[in-house]
Amino acid sequence: MKEVLERIDASRGQTLDELLAWLRIPSVSADPDRAGDVDRAARWLADRLSRAGFTTEVAPTGGHPAVVAEWRGAPGAPTVLVYGHYDVQPADPADGWTGAPFEPEIRQGAIVARGATDDKGQVSCHVAGARAVLEARGALPVNLVFLVEGEEESGSDHLEPFVTANRHRLACDAVVVSDSGQFAAGVPAITYGLRGLVYLEVTVQGPSRDLHSGSFGGAVVNPANALAGMLAALHDPAGKVAVPGFYDDVRPLEAWERAQFAALPFDEAALRADLGVGALGGEAGYTTLERLWARPTLDVNGLWGGYTGAGAKTVIPAEASAKLSCRLVPDQDPDQVAGAVEARLRDACPAGCAVDVRRLHGARPVLVPADAPAVRAARTAVAKGFGTDPVLIREGGSIPVVEAFQRLLGAPVVLVGFGRPDDRAHGPDERFHLDDLWAGVRTSAHLWEALAEADPAGSAIY
Amino acid sequence: MKEVLERIDASRGQTLDELLAWLRIPSVSADPDRAGDVDRAARWLADRLSRAGFTTEVAPTGGHPAVVAEWRGAPGAPTVLVYGHYDVQPADPADGWTGAPFEPEIRQGAIVARGATDDKGQVSCHVAGARAVLEARGALPVNLVFLVEGEEESGSDHLEPFVTANRHRLACDAVVVSDSGQFAAGVPAITYGLRGLVYLEVTVQGPSRDLHSGSFGGAVVNPANALAGMLAALHDPAGKVAVPGFYDDVRPLEAWERAQFAALPFDEAALRADLGVGALGGEAGYTTLERLWARPTLDVNGLWGGYTGAGAKTVIPAEASAKLSCRLVPDQDPDQVAGAVEARLRDACPAGCAVDVRRLHGARPVLVPADAPAVRAARTAVAKGFGTDPVLIREGGSIPVVEAFQRLLGAPVVLVGFGRPDDRAHGPDERFHLDDLWAGVRTSAHLWEALAEADPAGSAIY
Repeated sequence: MKEVLERIDASRGQTLDELLAWLRIPSVSADPDRAGDVDRAARWLADRLSRAGFTTEVAPTGGHPAVVAEWRGAPGAPTVLVYGHYDVQPADPADGWTGAPFEPEIRQGAIVARGATDDKGQVSCHVAGARAVLEARGALPVNLVFLVEGEEESGSDHLEPFVTANRHRLACDAVVVSDSGQFAAGVPAITYGLRGLVYLEVTVQGPSRDLHSGSFGGAVVNPANALAGMLAALHDPAGKVAVPGFYDDVRPLEAWERAQFAALPFDEAALRADLGVGALGGEAGYTTLERLWARPTLDVNGLWGGYTGAGAKTVIPAEASAKLSCRLVPDQDPDQVAGAVEARLRDACPAGCAVDVRRLHGARPVLVPADAPAVRAARTAVAKGFGTDPVLIREGGSIPVVEAFQRLLGAPVVLVGFGRPDDRAHGPDERFHLDDLWAGVRTSAHLWEALAEADPAGSAIY
Repeated sequence: MKEVLERIDASRGQTLDELLAWLRIPSVSADPDRAGDVDRAARWLADRLSRAGFTTEVAPTGGHPAVVAEWRGAPGAPTVLVYGHYDVQPADPADGWTGAPFEPEIRQGAIVARGATDDKGQVSCHVAGARAVLEARGALPVNLVFLVEGEEESGSDHLEPFVTANRHRLACDAVVVSDSGQFAAGVPAITYGLRGLVYLEVTVQGPSRDLHSGSFGGAVVNPANALAGMLAALHDPAGKVAVPGFYDDVRPLEAWERAQFAALPFDEAALRADLGVGALGGEAGYTTLERLWARPTLDVNGLWGGYTGAGAKTVIPAEASAKLSCRLVPDQDPDQVAGAVEARLRDACPAGCAVDVRRLHGARPVLVPADAPAVRAARTAVAKGFGTDPVLIREGGSIPVVEAFQRLLGAPVVLVGFGRPDDRAHGPDERFHLDDLWAGVRTSAHLWEALAEADPAGSAIY
């Protein structure tokens, strides 16, 4: 790899100049007035990938286009799909930016601009990494396909239909996503698990009309009181979800995972201070990181019913509602959990009220076995690129596109993040440290080789 | 009383004509455009009372005027204050009226018009009853003061200041209020108890900002979940309020009260059908009427927090709130109960959240001993006027003016209702049956005599 690494160092000026030029295009996908800029950012990327040796297309979707770039010069070797996005969050100097969000500057060793880390900077690592290998060696050790969409910051509404329609063209042995981050500065991470989701809306119906609490209070079952009791019944005093069957399919944390999480530089006091709470909470028997990453939850997301204006109105509401959701962990099934929670709610609903439960949304949890070849390859590449072994972490949220790739393409998804937690993605003065940029480019260059070596036949990389 | 009753019968035409004329004045106190009509209705009443022999004043308040009419020709006899109101609820043919709300008609033996029972019809009973006694005998057996306000249907905002400012002029031995009703048609009632109220607003504060439920769910104490648990902790499984000290001052129902309530023609199935519920509920060990009239409650009146729009938003809300109120019974004290509920909420608030409790409103419960001379006098008068003994009932709501009279004037308040539960007060086609009008006038005429006999010295009528 010596010649590849020399090539990376020699082209630092080009890599940086190109990233800064790309950052100057305000590709805010949520802003209809920026549609021309969004399109320009797509064409800019396609042009760079063409020059690097890829066959590119700015492919129409139902919304902003997707850039698809293919290099298929390694027959018999694995095929790798790199996913990223070229659109960015809105940004305005009025939001607290020191400079202009779309006029990038280098300050204190970091590029400061909207999109610097999320996701133009991280996509650029892979563009530069692949280009360096192609320039130094004339060929990549894997077949490589870029899929870079333009709607990630506004919902990825057209991504799943696009992937479905192009599932043969996008067929691959592994998906690489660099849209997450290091665990902390200098602690690069591979994210191997995501939580899923099931989202319900519950309405408790009592009397057929709002009633006067003087005339009827004490004899009518109040649906707001009933809802409170039903929601309270969903947890036990130890913070466990008190729904029969809820934990049936939860895969227990393995010993190495608990040890790995426990060893992370995680500052619970700083989290408490940041959130302004005197104490954290959760399920007994688990640490905070275990609760966040590997244990399922049941949170009330919204609550409404009766009189909510100023002052006092003595009403017994006709109905009361809540939105609630469970974060799911492997191997929980959204339908099974939704059914179990619904059954518990029905069971807890008192006589005199009726309950209606609607399922609004569901997403399966994701777990890529940490010893899968694709993960092992990514660990090797990060160790070489950053000069330190990555930690293996999970993420508490759901990333719908990850679950969609796994489901639609049947390939493992490896999340390798180059940015830092304090890079201010979505915030003012978003940045990407130059150290991380170069480490990311090196990691990318190593990754193709590591993936090729992990399973030269390309048949069982998962 | 023979000559008085003959006088009542002889002047039926006059009594009815005058009531119909009064009902034609649309004295809707809530409607600023009707201010002239409200004023006209006050002057109309003052004129009738002047002609009957009273010294009258249309007294200014901070809002619509109050009519004060005095007859003080019985030195040494008790002084009785009759309270009522000459203003009415809004009414519009579009609300479902068969005819015009302010063009009274006699249909099926009842006067149909806005204000027919609430409260012009019932006030008219006392005007005609007193006039008949004065015409037949030249004097009343008690000193009689009318206080008829014009803001009852819009909050009685200026009544308490007016009573306070005029407390010497309004000093009395008993207050008579005819703004309630019979228990059922043909079952006249005296209401001897009212529930009080304490109204609280509770806010549970969690993290200092709304959080993403994926990134933080499971480790942060969710204030909406916490609120549900805190509200649920306020009741036990038997429907009792689970607040230490809550029942300490509750006066137990006496045996005669339970027997009296149990003997009432109360149709629970009809109530369930009317409310559209499969079951009623409440505190174990009590009947529905006991729960409504003589047992304290704790109802959630409103609930809000987090995301309440359409669809799914995966948020852990920074805070969640509820409005809740307790109906109080004798001898509970609003401040003591508010303190006890607040203490229970604080106790149930989990670490990681803070709770703020604001007291919005309080009213003391009212109980006039059923064997008090004023109540006994009213029972006698109703029995003679209606030809059947009245039942003694309580009322589940609070009537703030009743508590205010008792507190400011130190006099017992007797609620004698002439109308029927299905007279549609506040609704379309409000009505007052002519039978009830004449029974009410007779009751009124008997009442002055009965009150005079109950305590001729006027010193211990309570």
